Amino acid sequence: MNISEQLRPIFAPRSVAVIGASGVPFKWGNDVILSMQTAGYQGTIYPINPREEKILGLPVYRTVLDVPDPIDLAVVSIRAEQVPQAMRECIQKGIKGAVLITAGFAETGSRGQALQEEVTRIARQGGIRFVGPNCMGIYSAAANLNLSLPGEVPKGSIGFISQSGTFGGIFARAAASRGCGLSSFISAGNQADLDAADYLEYLANDPETKVVVMYVEGLRDGKKLFNAGRKIAGQKPVIIYKAGKNQSIARVTLSHTASIAGEDRVFDAMCRQAGFIRVDELLSLLDAAAILTRQPLPGGNRMGILGTGGLCVVLADTCVSMGMEVPELKEEHVKFIVSDLEFPPHAPAPRNPVDFAGSNRTALQEAGVLNKMAQLDYIDGLICNTPITWADFSGSSAVEQEKLLIRAAELLTAIPQKLGKPVVTVGLNGIAFSNELIVKAMDAAGITSYNTPEAAARAMATLVQYAEIKRRFAKAS
Amino acid sequence: MNISEQLRPIFAPRSVAVIGASGVPFKWGNDVILSMQTAGYQGTIYPINPREEKILGLPVYRTVLDVPDPIDLAVVSIRAEQVPQAMRECIQKGIKGAVLITAGFAETGSRGQALQEEVTRIARQGGIRFVGPNCMGIYSAAANLNLSLPGEVPKGSIGFISQSGTFGGIFARAAASRGCGLSSFISAGNQADLDAADYLEYLANDPETKVVVMYVEGLRDGKKLFNAGRKIAGQKPVIIYKAGKNQSIARVTLSHTASIAGEDRVFDAMCRQAGFIRVDELLSLLDAAAILTRQPLPGGNRMGILGTGGLCVVLADTCVSMGMEVPELKEEHVKFIVSDLEFPPHAPAPRNPVDFAGSNRTALQEAGVLNKMAQLDYIDGLICNTPITWADFSGSSAVEQEKLLIRAAELLTAIPQKLGKPVVTVGLNGIAFSNELIVKAMDAAGITSYNTPEAAARAMATLVQYAEIKRRFAKAS
Repeated sequence: MNISEQLRPIFAPRSVAVIGASGVPFKWGNDVILSMQTAGYQGTIYPINPREEKILGLPVYRTVLDVPDPIDLAVVSIRAEQVPQAMRECIQKGIKGAVLITAGFAETGSRGQALQEEVTRIARQGGIRFVGPNCMGIYSAAANLNLSLPGEVPKGSIGFISQSGTFGGIFARAAASRGCGLSSFISAGNQADLDAADYLEYLANDPETKVVVMYVEGLRDGKKLFNAGRKIAGQKPVIIYKAGKNQSIARVTLSHTASIAGEDRVFDAMCRQAGFIRVDELLSLLDAAAILTRQPLPGGNRMGILGTGGLCVVLADTCVSMGMEVPELKEEHVKFIVSDLEFPPHAPAPRNPVDFAGSNRTALQEAGVLNKMAQLDYIDGLICNTPITWADFSGSSAVEQEKLLIRAAELLTAIPQKLGKPVVTVGLNGIAFSNELIVKAMDAAGITSYNTPEAAARAMATLVQYAEIKRRFAKAS
Repeated sequence: MNISEQLRPIFAPRSVAVIGASGVPFKWGNDVILSMQTAGYQGTIYPINPREEKILGLPVYRTVLDVPDPIDLAVVSIRAEQVPQAMRECIQKGIKGAVLITAGFAETGSRGQALQEEVTRIARQGGIRFVGPNCMGIYSAAANLNLSLPGEVPKGSIGFISQSGTFGGIFARAAASRGCGLSSFISAGNQADLDAADYLEYLANDPETKVVVMYVEGLRDGKKLFNAGRKIAGQKPVIIYKAGKNQSIARVTLSHTASIAGEDRVFDAMCRQAGFIRVDELLSLLDAAAILTRQPLPGGNRMGILGTGGLCVVLADTCVSMGMEVPELKEEHVKFIVSDLEFPPHAPAPRNPVDFAGSNRTALQEAGVLNKMAQLDYIDGLICNTPITWADFSGSSAVEQEKLLIRAAELLTAIPQKLGKPVVTVGLNGIAFSNELIVKAMDAAGITSYNTPEAAARAMATLVQYAEIKRRFAKAS
């Protein structure tokens, strides 16, 4: 039985037992049932508690053995010492998957470690696979199964494997704010049985997941993870953030998820070999995932840049620092590119970057220049300020202005959609000129207006990086 | 006459002539008068134009020589070829300062270079100092003089020297969004006469300016700038961003402000020697300036960290990566620190970071722990999640909740205000728990709720870095 089949009872269970169900609001054993009900889970939920009769409208059973029907998944939130017995009962009942929320295992020292080993031994002998312990559950969009995330979860195509449960809810909301959503979330916890490599292999075969993001504190089995990575890298991007880079804070990862950080340089080299995209900042995981789900991959690393004054300089410089090129426009193309614009007499001919400073132009004209640049065979992607200018608000009527802005947005969105080249824009957080109409029209087509030039360039660099990884692994296989 | 006296006619003019004034809205020669009027400039404005009679309600003169009263400053926005003659007339009139907006000089090639040299020669012989050419003017809060920035400008204590005029308006709004404002802005342009070093020396002596930020593309005279830096570093922080790090895009800086980028490693070494704080991202200039104006300097680099789960790990790790320390709590202090909190039985004793995960606590309790940690003599600063928890919204009445949150904010704000130690918090952009009441109360006391753990750690690292620079330069002088 391959890993996808083994994990089906966990990610697509027909029924779920909650061992440690509670009638007290705000307790885990109450929250988790409420979350399932809110998310519209269609299977049957069996609260297990020896002292209650009804929880959230559902009949309660003393043990899983008292439930008359078959159970696919057990969610376990009881005291650590009680877990071995509960696990034995799950096996006796024929349950094939478990999610162990309970903490108090390896992360607390040698006694907890021994208890964790006992539970793992029981599970292995009984043929049950489990998530955790010391975790905050999972989320599976396809099954409407939410054991973990507070509030409403945006559905989407990002699969998230995390050694921090806290980051589940944070990432769900961060994804939504970037126009994306989650296909699944796994709070991996101590990874006593199933580990990051298993989840990665599962997500590789999951049709709902287009991009995988991982928050890692330490590796149980680095070789296994990177082997799994090599298999998926050619099909789906895998983005990884590693905490615990510094040995001096080893005590912190150890007490959080019993993780040992390992040498950072080694980890970095392994990421390169496995085709992982490694990011340096936590929320860059979502930035990278968002651009990869929203824009086409570029054919190369040559960028066309358009903007005003210093912004052109910063964008061009940042692109080069991030490994991209900013090719000079060929003499025969300069006129074609800027024929619709009126520059002051002294202005140097724009050769990429195209600096709009001093020219009296509209958003429509800026978008026209971008569209023309995208047609050049030596330009692989476009980075520009969010096209909107003072000129858009003088002269014509409000209705006329709106028409022009929509036409500008169309010229822009045609670049990814018809020419297959990626576009990112810099809006400086509404600090520079910005207009909701054009920002929304662009956003609907996957073109993000970034707060900083570096964020825009970094998004493009991610696309360039994954395009290279994809070519490399396609060639290898 | 020292530089402060020489620049007084530019930054605190009693009267301003606008050479190239225009009656046409949206033209520079119109905008600049409107900006002065809007900002409430108290001196006299003399529009100069040979073909107009009245502009924005003001009488117009053919040349500066036709103005009956003395003039301190000339703002010049006419064609480049006309500038030498205008400069001669300014000298004849006894004007001591000029701001040359006009472009078409060294940034356009050898003919423009020759014209720029001619203008500079005339000015030097006539004893007039000037900003530019090819610039977007200046702003001086103390004089209510706005020749440059669109919209309303937030007044404050940041002095901004920039080789990009575009960034003036962007930075003014970025400062406001960080709870700060500008004391002055200088769009330095081609720096034919006055250069960054002169402006830096001027701002060093300007009582309104507490922090200097600089956007640099190339240096006219690196040695002069870094000598000026060494003089100011012990008194005021100087934060610098350098564009044009890559030689391959030299054509871009050259055509923008006639700048030659130079070797980046050399620049970096010079920054260290001069006591400049160098930042890698454009808007980090404002992030650094904001924290330096809003929080006390730490006595050392030892951080106390409080948060939930993975956030503790990421914060501790990031702090160490940025050169800070996260000392383990001494055995005898652990009880003192967490005596008000109830942790689950299995939870390891919190030794810094203090991980709140699993404990049922309120914002008030979190703030209490922070306040206690700040009292330890081996903790120099605090980084934590923005204190607000689910527990704050259950049980007590809304009025009661509000009281508790205000009390929590007081415990927090006492740390910088009474203990003299800096505090930054991570709010994850309202993605994690956040509450306007406590965020606003903290913000009023200079405690920012940052969007990412890295931004919070970077802010603290800036304080640590400047504290070290200040000690080093205080010792040296």
